[in-house]
Amino acid sequence: MPLVRIDVLDGHDDDTLAALGDAVHVAMTETIDVPDDDLFQVINRHPAGRVRYDPAYLGVRRDDGIVFVAITMRAGRTVEQKKALYRRITELAWEKAGVEPRNVLISITENELCDWSFGEGLAQMIS
Amino acid sequence: MPLVRIDVLDGHDDDTLAALGDAVHVAMTETIDVPDDDLFQVINRHPAGRVRYDPAYLGVRRDDGIVFVAITMRAGRTVEQKKALYRRITELAWEKAGVEPRNVLISITENELCDWSFGEGLAQMIS
Amino acid sequence: MPLVRIDVLDGHDDDTLAALGDAVHVAMTETIDVPDDDLFQVINRHPAGRVRYDPAYLGVRRDDGIVFVAITMRAGRTVEQKKALYRRITELAWEKAGVEPRNVLISITENELCDWSFGEGLAQMIS
Repeated sequence: MPLVRIDVLDGHDDDTLAALGDAVHVAMTETIDVPDDDLFQVINRHPAGRVRYDPAYLGVRRDDGIVFVAITMRAGRTVEQKKALYRRITELAWEKAGVEPRNVLISITENELCDWSFGEGLAQMIS
Repeated sequence: MPLVRIDVLDGHDDDTLAALGDAVHVAMTETIDVPDDDLFQVINRHPAGRVRYDPAYLGVRRDDGIVFVAITMRAGRTVEQKKALYRRITELAWEKAGVEPRNVLISITENELCDWSFGEGLAQMIS
Repeated sequence: MPLVRIDVLDGHDDDTLAALGDAVHVAMTETIDVPDDDLFQVINRHPAGRVRYDPAYLGVRRDDGIVFVAITMRAGRTVEQKKALYRRITELAWEKAGVEPRNVLISITENELCDWSFGEGLAQMIS
């Protein structure tokens, strides 16, 4: 159910983007009970200057290897699960895609089970 | 008021994208009381591999004709209205744009009336 | 912490887009207590027809100079703060980027402090 938007700057090749998507997905399956086959992602690669970031906010050094991961999912995960999710995304982004932990920004937006249709015009989560 | 983001892969031509936008908009006017002239959409067409999806999650077969429809709107619609919205978007996407029902994924995120400005720096919904 | 998505049509040059991003950021620092160095934005420039809008909804005239500003931030700002934010974004978009007030659409989506990681896999807002 999560719908994940990943935004990066030029400089990440296609294989890296796929590996990054995989990293986020695997982290969700491991930490917040997302099924293996519940994969929906949009990955956007932008020209220089179109992903804008502060290079030092909260003491974290960032550069143009920056990755924004925006997750929309149903409410219900605990704070501890979210903390585990952030850790695991960051670990796997490094292992699988070579993205440095300092360059991974994550944001979650929550909705409800009735807010999803996975095809055929049905609200599968509440049927 | 809804702000709609539609993401598709290459292979949908410009006319199809416009028809798809129309389908989503008309469905909203018919099922959730969106005014005819309350139209705000961003349509993104991505290179191969950048819209990632599982081809069988929840028993629905999907392919590269996949369409993600992400709707941000004020809270207040009932579950029955949302179900009707999903059905109607899917019907009209097929009728108007030739998008198969199995390929339509929909996600809703809600906010409040005070969370919108429609120009001139005003919060028109709460004035 | 806000993650800001800005969508425009072709016709805005690179300098205008950067100035527009600056306008939104400065407005947030002035009206809703966003720190100066809390800057995270994605700016997308789209081909003709991909940002769709009604040219007169609520009596505001819009044209292809349209700008969608979608802000995700933690809950807690008052209605008065949001009104001030809309006014200030619109003023600064005109002053800094030459974007007309009638062409600025703004939408806010809120989440919680635990919904953010600013790098290193940490949930800095709740540590």
